Amino acid sequence: MDRDRILLTPGPLTTTLRTKLAMLHDWGSWDADFNAVTAGVRSRLLDIVHGHGTHVVVPLQGSGTFSVEAAVATVVPRDGHVLVLDNGAYCKRAGKLTQMMGRRVSTVAFAEDAPVSPAVLDDQLRTDASITHVVLIHCETGAGVENPLADVAAVCERHGKGLIVDAMSSFAALPIDARTVRFDALIAASGKCLEGVPGMGFVFIRQAVLDGCAGNSQSLAMDLHDQHQYMAKTGQWRFTPPTHVVVALAEAITQFVEEGGQPARLARYTANCATLIEGMGQLGLQPFLKAEHQAPIIVTFHAPAHPAYDFQRFYQAAKRRGFMLYPGKLTTVDTFRVGCIGAIGSLEMQQAVNAVGEALREMGIPTAPA
Amino acid sequence: MDRDRILLTPGPLTTTLRTKLAMLHDWGSWDADFNAVTAGVRSRLLDIVHGHGTHVVVPLQGSGTFSVEAAVATVVPRDGHVLVLDNGAYCKRAGKLTQMMGRRVSTVAFAEDAPVSPAVLDDQLRTDASITHVVLIHCETGAGVENPLADVAAVCERHGKGLIVDAMSSFAALPIDARTVRFDALIAASGKCLEGVPGMGFVFIRQAVLDGCAGNSQSLAMDLHDQHQYMAKTGQWRFTPPTHVVVALAEAITQFVEEGGQPARLARYTANCATLIEGMGQLGLQPFLKAEHQAPIIVTFHAPAHPAYDFQRFYQAAKRRGFMLYPGKLTTVDTFRVGCIGAIGSLEMQQAVNAVGEALREMGIPTAPA
Ligand SMILES: Cc1ncc(COP(=O)(O)O)c(C=O)c1O
Ligand SMILES: Cc1ncc(COP(=O)(O)O)c(C=O)c1O
Repeated sequence: MDRDRILLTPGPLTTTLRTKLAMLHDWGSWDADFNAVTAGVRSRLLDIVHGHGTHVVVPLQGSGTFSVEAAVATVVPRDGHVLVLDNGAYCKRAGKLTQMMGRRVSTVAFAEDAPVSPAVLDDQLRTDASITHVVLIHCETGAGVENPLADVAAVCERHGKGLIVDAMSSFAALPIDARTVRFDALIAASGKCLEGVPGMGFVFIRQAVLDGCAGNSQSLAMDLHDQHQYMAKTGQWRFTPPTHVVVALAEAITQFVEEGGQPARLARYTANCATLIEGMGQLGLQPFLKAEHQAPIIVTFHAPAHPAYDFQRFYQAAKRRGFMLYPGKLTTVDTFRVGCIGAIGSLEMQQAVNAVGEALREMGIPTAPA
Repeated sequence: MDRDRILLTPGPLTTTLRTKLAMLHDWGSWDADFNAVTAGVRSRLLDIVHGHGTHVVVPLQGSGTFSVEAAVATVVPRDGHVLVLDNGAYCKRAGKLTQMMGRRVSTVAFAEDAPVSPAVLDDQLRTDASITHVVLIHCETGAGVENPLADVAAVCERHGKGLIVDAMSSFAALPIDARTVRFDALIAASGKCLEGVPGMGFVFIRQAVLDGCAGNSQSLAMDLHDQHQYMAKTGQWRFTPPTHVVVALAEAITQFVEEGGQPARLARYTANCATLIEGMGQLGLQPFLKAEHQAPIIVTFHAPAHPAYDFQRFYQAAKRRGFMLYPGKLTTVDTFRVGCIGAIGSLEMQQAVNAVGEALREMGIPTAPA
């Protein structure tokens, strides 16, 4: 069998063998040993945002989107009004799920190649007093933009509005400090920058808002308040947890801490991103974003403007060489994406660049700086 | 490190090493190789219920409850009226999630030590024409009762009502034939009698009702119609799948087929159940259910009527001997439960009986036939 391909996608990621080996045991979900694993994961997640004493973290089965939906369903009252700061695909999804569950929702649209504007948010909140909650995507994985979390949080706090942050692709890599950044809920998942396997998400909720969340959710499965109460009492998940995913996450967090925590992870991803952009530049491939807006998580590149270019063929040629790329998610420009996250370093990024170069040349597309 | 304990619970179960070893690879969720795994799983799931050409199967991230909620949300229109046939804890949960999502719900209560009655259902449907859907739990895992699926389905068909079957703990063990048993939706999960690891569920939906399901769900994550459309078009999950759980399920299904499919699995579980009940009887422990109501999935035993008995101590004593038991879920009688499912056979069941005997004697509880 071939060696596993390196996944250059925004999740699932390449994980360490050590993380995967943790899945070679079966755990009883009702047992004290497993409760201790869950408790350890939750405590170490709170460490990462400096949230002990002020926030709780509630785990949830399912993909990241399930946790975003659960956060909105739990934190926003039924007569709430949610404002989504929209600069990409994941913002639109957050708006859609909010609307589907019957909460009032408004959207401010921003360009997808730049961060959302705290000043525009400030205006909006001044104009429309009915808004109760703001939704921000920290790293908009659609294009790869880093949004100004601290500034948006400050505006929300000034106006006394709740803030819900989708930090799916940024958590554990970009700094998030709950002592200085005020949010009501912040969402991430196992299979992103913590480098676990996919299958669960988790939502940080500010304790001051938690009690007010009782009865908000119209979904039993998505009711994080109910899950939190139950876990506080029993140490258990309400419904069967993805036990193997949870123990893999516990093992991944141990390695995260050993590596040096969030600063070390950010440094590695930043180096990955720099190696990638530098190398791709030498092949004549330009990033879609200006450097100052680029999060070191996933990079969108303009597709080569050459008649022989076809994403599917390009993808297959890179895959044959050991690397899985990701399609672009922009509607107006032809792009592809390359992730910088996962259990990989600059070596793998350089090998990926080399593979991309070979793939393009195989397709008859010249590779040289523009 | 100790050998893994044998899990005698209704999931997570003891799985084979071969199933767990499948999780030692990372898969790109966007890649054709992974789409092929998903397609293979779905096709073989349809084989098991003989549903090719008449039914689709839609996978969903999360625990089994998520799939029950999704089935109700997707199949029942917003102005529908659901009747729950209630003879246990999982029936009550289905009623609760239906009510929370805002669907009208009625309940007929039955005793928890016997199957629900198709005759009573017939009466109920004759009396209340507003009922649109019936919810049945095939094996009520709370006490372990097998409910009369075929008869209930026949009554529903005669009255032209939709039927939603929670077959979580019965699917792949008890026979279910979609050619002769008419249901609108039937739900199961990866970590039950297929002996995969927990983390995903799946819902069979009758094709004749599928188109009418568009727009029913108020939840984006739970919208199985939307997931089905998307998967039909792209071969992909809408949101990041639990890739390792999916490949483990694929491997578990391969072993299920090799073993001889549903009849072979039923035979093994039936033998496990017989060894268990026989052996426990010799220790003086009596099953809660009459033999004719007992599904060979999980057995509820009366707790020993001895002052030294305490479930927690009993559980720990059995755990030290390598076996994880399960607490009872009945409100009126003191019981404990022992699962017969998972990658275990009569040998393990006999060893479990021996461990239970030692545990009781250690607690000073005499073990002899009553
Ligand atoms: C910012 C953001 N939000 C939400 C999601 C959705 O996560 P999932 O695919 O696990 O549902 C993603 C996935 O990449 C994401 O990057
Ligand atoms: C009949 C039945 N329904 C629903 C469930 C809920 O499944 P989960 O715990 O995976 O949410 C179970 C779990 O054992 C079950 O046995």
